[in-house]
Amino acid sequence: MPDPKGRGKPWSGRFAKKTNPLVDAYTGSLDIDATLYSHDIRASIAHARMLARQRIIPRADANAIVRGLREIEREIERGEFPFDASLEDIHTNIESRLADKIGDAAGRLHTARSRNDQVATDLRLSTKDAIEHLMGAIYDLQSALLDMAERHSSVVMPGYTHLQRAQPVLLAHHLLAYFEMLERDFNRFAACYVRTNVLPLGSGALAGVPYPLDRASVAKELEFAAISRNSIDAVSDRDFVAEFLACAAICAMHLSRLAEEIVLWSTAEFGFMEIDDAFATGSSIMPQKKNPDVAELARGRTGRIYGNLVGFLTVLKALPLSYNRDLQEDKAPLFETYESLLLTLFVMAEMLPSIRVNEEVMRAAATAGYTLATDLADYQVRKGVPFREAHQAVGKLVRYASGRGKGLSELTLKEYQRHSPLFEEDVLGLDVEASLRARDVPGGTAPQRVAEALKEARRRLATEEGENGE
Amino acid sequence: MPDPKGRGKPWSGRFAKKTNPLVDAYTGSLDIDATLYSHDIRASIAHARMLARQRIIPRADANAIVRGLREIEREIERGEFPFDASLEDIHTNIESRLADKIGDAAGRLHTARSRNDQVATDLRLSTKDAIEHLMGAIYDLQSALLDMAERHSSVVMPGYTHLQRAQPVLLAHHLLAYFEMLERDFNRFAACYVRTNVLPLGSGALAGVPYPLDRASVAKELEFAAISRNSIDAVSDRDFVAEFLACAAICAMHLSRLAEEIVLWSTAEFGFMEIDDAFATGSSIMPQKKNPDVAELARGRTGRIYGNLVGFLTVLKALPLSYNRDLQEDKAPLFETYESLLLTLFVMAEMLPSIRVNEEVMRAAATAGYTLATDLADYQVRKGVPFREAHQAVGKLVRYASGRGKGLSELTLKEYQRHSPLFEEDVLGLDVEASLRARDVPGGTAPQRVAEALKEARRRLATEEGENGE
Amino acid sequence: MPDPKGRGKPWSGRFAKKTNPLVDAYTGSLDIDATLYSHDIRASIAHARMLARQRIIPRADANAIVRGLREIEREIERGEFPFDASLEDIHTNIESRLADKIGDAAGRLHTARSRNDQVATDLRLSTKDAIEHLMGAIYDLQSALLDMAERHSSVVMPGYTHLQRAQPVLLAHHLLAYFEMLERDFNRFAACYVRTNVLPLGSGALAGVPYPLDRASVAKELEFAAISRNSIDAVSDRDFVAEFLACAAICAMHLSRLAEEIVLWSTAEFGFMEIDDAFATGSSIMPQKKNPDVAELARGRTGRIYGNLVGFLTVLKALPLSYNRDLQEDKAPLFETYESLLLTLFVMAEMLPSIRVNEEVMRAAATAGYTLATDLADYQVRKGVPFREAHQAVGKLVRYASGRGKGLSELTLKEYQRHSPLFEEDVLGLDVEASLRARDVPGGTAPQRVAEALKEARRRLATEEGENGE
Amino acid sequence: MPDPKGRGKPWSGRFAKKTNPLVDAYTGSLDIDATLYSHDIRASIAHARMLARQRIIPRADANAIVRGLREIEREIERGEFPFDASLEDIHTNIESRLADKIGDAAGRLHTARSRNDQVATDLRLSTKDAIEHLMGAIYDLQSALLDMAERHSSVVMPGYTHLQRAQPVLLAHHLLAYFEMLERDFNRFAACYVRTNVLPLGSGALAGVPYPLDRASVAKELEFAAISRNSIDAVSDRDFVAEFLACAAICAMHLSRLAEEIVLWSTAEFGFMEIDDAFATGSSIMPQKKNPDVAELARGRTGRIYGNLVGFLTVLKALPLSYNRDLQEDKAPLFETYESLLLTLFVMAEMLPSIRVNEEVMRAAATAGYTLATDLADYQVRKGVPFREAHQAVGKLVRYASGRGKGLSELTLKEYQRHSPLFEEDVLGLDVEASLRARDVPGGTAPQRVAEALKEARRRLATEEGENGE
Repeated sequence: MPDPKGRGKPWSGRFAKKTNPLVDAYTGSLDIDATLYSHDIRASIAHARMLARQRIIPRADANAIVRGLREIEREIERGEFPFDASLEDIHTNIESRLADKIGDAAGRLHTARSRNDQVATDLRLSTKDAIEHLMGAIYDLQSALLDMAERHSSVVMPGYTHLQRAQPVLLAHHLLAYFEMLERDFNRFAACYVRTNVLPLGSGALAGVPYPLDRASVAKELEFAAISRNSIDAVSDRDFVAEFLACAAICAMHLSRLAEEIVLWSTAEFGFMEIDDAFATGSSIMPQKKNPDVAELARGRTGRIYGNLVGFLTVLKALPLSYNRDLQEDKAPLFETYESLLLTLFVMAEMLPSIRVNEEVMRAAATAGYTLATDLADYQVRKGVPFREAHQAVGKLVRYASGRGKGLSELTLKEYQRHSPLFEEDVLGLDVEASLRARDVPGGTAPQRVAEALKEARRRLATEEGENGE
Repeated sequence: MPDPKGRGKPWSGRFAKKTNPLVDAYTGSLDIDATLYSHDIRASIAHARMLARQRIIPRADANAIVRGLREIEREIERGEFPFDASLEDIHTNIESRLADKIGDAAGRLHTARSRNDQVATDLRLSTKDAIEHLMGAIYDLQSALLDMAERHSSVVMPGYTHLQRAQPVLLAHHLLAYFEMLERDFNRFAACYVRTNVLPLGSGALAGVPYPLDRASVAKELEFAAISRNSIDAVSDRDFVAEFLACAAICAMHLSRLAEEIVLWSTAEFGFMEIDDAFATGSSIMPQKKNPDVAELARGRTGRIYGNLVGFLTVLKALPLSYNRDLQEDKAPLFETYESLLLTLFVMAEMLPSIRVNEEVMRAAATAGYTLATDLADYQVRKGVPFREAHQAVGKLVRYASGRGKGLSELTLKEYQRHSPLFEEDVLGLDVEASLRARDVPGGTAPQRVAEALKEARRRLATEEGENGE
Repeated sequence: MPDPKGRGKPWSGRFAKKTNPLVDAYTGSLDIDATLYSHDIRASIAHARMLARQRIIPRADANAIVRGLREIEREIERGEFPFDASLEDIHTNIESRLADKIGDAAGRLHTARSRNDQVATDLRLSTKDAIEHLMGAIYDLQSALLDMAERHSSVVMPGYTHLQRAQPVLLAHHLLAYFEMLERDFNRFAACYVRTNVLPLGSGALAGVPYPLDRASVAKELEFAAISRNSIDAVSDRDFVAEFLACAAICAMHLSRLAEEIVLWSTAEFGFMEIDDAFATGSSIMPQKKNPDVAELARGRTGRIYGNLVGFLTVLKALPLSYNRDLQEDKAPLFETYESLLLTLFVMAEMLPSIRVNEEVMRAAATAGYTLATDLADYQVRKGVPFREAHQAVGKLVRYASGRGKGLSELTLKEYQRHSPLFEEDVLGLDVEASLRARDVPGGTAPQRVAEALKEARRRLATEEGENGE
Repeated sequence: MPDPKGRGKPWSGRFAKKTNPLVDAYTGSLDIDATLYSHDIRASIAHARMLARQRIIPRADANAIVRGLREIEREIERGEFPFDASLEDIHTNIESRLADKIGDAAGRLHTARSRNDQVATDLRLSTKDAIEHLMGAIYDLQSALLDMAERHSSVVMPGYTHLQRAQPVLLAHHLLAYFEMLERDFNRFAACYVRTNVLPLGSGALAGVPYPLDRASVAKELEFAAISRNSIDAVSDRDFVAEFLACAAICAMHLSRLAEEIVLWSTAEFGFMEIDDAFATGSSIMPQKKNPDVAELARGRTGRIYGNLVGFLTVLKALPLSYNRDLQEDKAPLFETYESLLLTLFVMAEMLPSIRVNEEVMRAAATAGYTLATDLADYQVRKGVPFREAHQAVGKLVRYASGRGKGLSELTLKEYQRHSPLFEEDVLGLDVEASLRARDVPGGTAPQRVAEALKEARRRLATEEGENGE
């Protein structure tokens, strides 16, 4: 028999039969949503207090509710809470326990509230926390990248296009490219936060509630910046989850690019860096192996994060309004993406400082081959040759040199001049440093520009810290 | 033999052999990127002018370049341009044609510029246009929804959860839920626009260029709000495409929900609306059929748009810096998503005004069954019963009534009182209108609240028009 | 100091430093792969026995290994195994425990084996089990559908296209459409099983092993149908997981279609069926609600399953050979998809028998409207009119009737004849039964054809049982 | 006014109004489905002939239809067909043209057929062709891989795990790993072909047709192996497209792995191979560049192919039976995936023979570092040390050697013995060849095993040719 005091399923009154146990297992979500307990309790406390302020429930009942919920929170934190999987979800578990503790008054907590606006509220609180933590972790990885760039501010490496050596760049310049990506991630999450920061509570099941609520005061207590404007939308909307997952996917993509470079640069073939033992793993069969597993896993986790985005967009496709149970599938992708991305950001930020950069190998690679060919073309342009023509001429020069197994610096002035009479003595002075210095445009790799960019990055980090720190 | 005057492939100087024709077919992108011609020409003109201002190339050459490019633009628009698929892409086609027209001076256009920063610039210009058009189309659909809501401001329908009738709501309230979704879409695209609105030109192949550029003046002429801060990032970054595709996916998801409801409401079973003949199609075999094909296709197009998001995220996964040819796969998903979403927004906005709403059917559905059961529970709560207890009691009342095949309004006061002594005479006066009126909270479906929401929506549309109209 | 007896990480010899604890947390997979324990132990026992048979290790050591592993299996099953999360994964946990139990001999188990071929073997064993269970569950759902079809073999319903009533069909015919889909799923999984059923053990890290293995005997003991043909492929290949996930995605799609119809048919508007209380859930706020949550969740789970497919394809994209740590991301999508799909199949099979079909409502819907219009066109065709012409004529007749609010059966012979002189007295006899009977082609909905199809389905189920039962 | 002779939309009889032009643009599919013309004509001819054989339409009309359709096919092939975009799709275009050509008889072609079973038939015919072509292209790439492997049958390279050099392998062995992957692709497509090879024609709109069809004879003429068993399933089923897309995604994944390795091996850092000029492209700014664009694009195309799979699965999710217009979204992903994958297979097969392998560089890399460390451990095992213990000992030896900047071959016997007394004189003879020879297990890289594998691969190719050639 249903229990009128609020124990058991909250909707059992209408039903003649008990739920099939397989259905309980299938529809229950306690294993996933238990983590929402603190947000649920916080939101319930704010709701109960407001109900009392608005004289919708007796103040004494509200006080009992608040007290009971606080006890429950402590029980959960101490691992003493008697979770009951047959009670569907965390919300019913808490409500049922509250009835055990304070009796009839517990039944008043659900006044002017539905499970629909309640879970939407809890999930938004949880998403806000997740975004804040991720923004903090992005900030930390930006700091680690900037530290590393500053530490190696004069290290030269070959810049790549198509994974072919293209032109010399500063390692610091290369690292700052990731700083920029992460800053866009930071800003995207900040924008997602704004759209998440809206209180749905007060929307009832879908139509609003027939009680004189003070929704603004609940928003204030729960630190929401606004209240939802349409009750049907409020219980159906999971855009904030989809947007969160999209922001995470783009951020994970950035990390996969960084991870790929760590894997490449750690190969015997590149030899640009060595990962510290503390961040590498070995082989069960090959005693000599030292593997960049952390970077490989960071690259691999991209899959899970992309998958969660796709999966949740699939859930939402073509759902009629308003709430449908399909929406229960919001939590697994949200929580799993959050944890996966957070841990990846953490482990990358911790690994970067331990990396040993092989400066000589990088410099040698930046010099070898024909990475200064563009500079030769530009040399000719400065002497009046149209760029396209200069490009063709230097192309032939490179073909000539590589046919003889020579680098550009090994050619004689004669050989240069055989390809163009415009080459003069000074062409022999062209080197990596000159090439770098010449790229003196905003955003370019000239050492002075990179030095300014490092300072500017510090300034921006300080600003982000302020934003994030509030 | 390579042509030093800028005809043929711009990089043929270094190569001993011609490209394999299958490779030309495989790597060419002219069929997809031809549509970028106007952005390419616009950016080239701005670049040439700046080169002249900075005395990097002679003013006369710049003038010839500008004149030649304008002629080419007219040729393309008139369908007179001699496209040559063997020339890889639209950029080379234009450059080669320019050489035909103005000779040697054409070779100076590529000074201080690489294909890498050039295509990034063109693509950002194109994405900005796409976003502007989509924001306009979202605005139009919001207007159409608002018009429809205002036209039916007193129509009552059953609100649904789990596709089961739940509580009566106003149709206008239901339509405003979509207005809210689209407003979030509008804002998300606006935020994406800000991140797209950054000029990469001046980044060269990846390292910056060795010429004294005035990047800010180019940004100004091309109406970019900022210049990129890191040249490596500038040529590698396609976040703006990924973010665009994510915004589009969420918007398409909203449209799929609206489309689903149009399909459902047009069934014989729901009978809530009739689509105008002009927006329906028939059957080749069943003479009686009138099918909501437009809505079905709008729902189906979600697939293509989701697929493009996933596909492009896949492309970007684990790409090392900086430019890789994989990035050529940015244009197909971008253009296809843009067209698909734009057309869907257009056709939905045009179809809505033609829909005939069957008000009586909607009202009858809102009244039938037990949609006022929540109101009965709230009735008891107002008499002091805890909500949970009231819910259980009304649950049993519903079971009693449905067991006898009666609606709530068909029960006698005696029957009510058999379930709870708190029911009094006034319970018989409970009807749909009373239920609606009671939901008098911000965001609720009470007629007065919905009237205010309609006005507020008008105000916001006016603001959006301002934003979008600039 | 590393422990030469096989405790601790198997590769610690080469390393000067301990692993960073965050790295342990990040790279560890014990929480996910613990479930592989029985497959791991089974494969290790087969490996150890073969090593002894081939005299690669002493028989006494092999016996100790087998005994130790059996003890460990019992410990795990009794919940008494001392799991140690710092030991990376289940494989290392078992190996370390074995060293505790049997000392030095444990160190011989890893002879002629690498973690790479070991995990590939375990995962294939596990995937084979998963496929067998899913094929069983598909079979059960097919049985439930067939039972339901047989129980309602004479129930008439409207067949739909575009969710508009099109032509009358038998409910049994409609249910058999799902039977067909599931049979394709069954066959697809069976084909995936064949490709999974290949033993990689003996491939070593990637190159094969320098010991005289008898791979065929291990395959026989572990019930693999074949051994892998290339050691590099064997440790890199996860096609069987990707194919499994693709089969699951298509199957989940079928279930989402069935779920959608259960949701639709349970609405007040369709009223075609009622879900038993034991398979429905209620509302926390609306006492009258009875929601088809099981079907909604089945529909929603499609997202998770699609997401896992996409996610894992993302992981595999562009991985160089051979093993990379990214592959560790195979288990989460595999296990999660397996559980999610299995449970959905179970719950659907259990729910179907409890559904009450409202035969009268279905029949009324099949008769209402103009579902016999095609039959009128065919009537004319039989009198010599080309189909296109007949279709046009009946189209106009329908427009005439619906303009007057009449059904086809309410028209007089005069009205018929006004649209075509070919209509004669017998047109008035056209009814749902005649329409059904007429569709007497293989695969058609004529009652006799459906009766045969039901028998044929029984026959095929018996065959599947045979296949699956082995 | 609708045209009873079969011109214009086939369903216009029921409609009072013309279609909105935007709707025509939105719902039309002629730009995508025109390519189905030959399948449509072929299927229509088979249908018309059977109708005549069964005396459902006059033989003279059938003859006229066949003649007219053949003329239309020639018109299309000569580019002389007057396509009319306002006529929805290719099917209506052909039908309308037929009416122009042969008059009234054209209206009989649609007897006993619906657009629903017609398009399903055309699409299956088209998918069968696509699969056959792809199987042929897979076969060609397998041949190219096998040729390359045979050409380099004694080339040694380092095998990689985690992109770290692991153990020496033969290049031929490495290439055969891709041969295996492609063979699985071949088999998967063959299995998909079987499930595609079923004739839906005769299912009508969804319920079957009221005419005495001979479906088996149509299947025979169109070379289908079977006829569909359930008419509702037959018009709703697009599993064959989803399965095709899944097979293509897995195949594209394999190609992306091969492409990744071509990109890596072509870097200056690896230096393992050089792509022929005919398959490389250059840079517009850097004259020295020679880029592996073909491989990069092959890797990038994976995105489009994954996206099409996801997109189409999204379309199918939760569609109620039977046909819905959403299904029109089947063609774009199918055709685009087919073309993209086919071209990638072609270009890879053509590029492989042109690759120059740098044998010395590969061999040097296979020898450098500690790739023989596993052999040292196995050396100890053969002397009775448990593997785990041997692994630890060699791990320390490697640490010792690398600390002194020495390779294993540079260590003295003394240094070996300092780490273990079991090392004897013969340890100094351990080299790459000995390591390869030792891996003499089925599937291993021992030269004799690889030679056999090459022969076996030839045998299997011959078998595939037979299968494919039918």
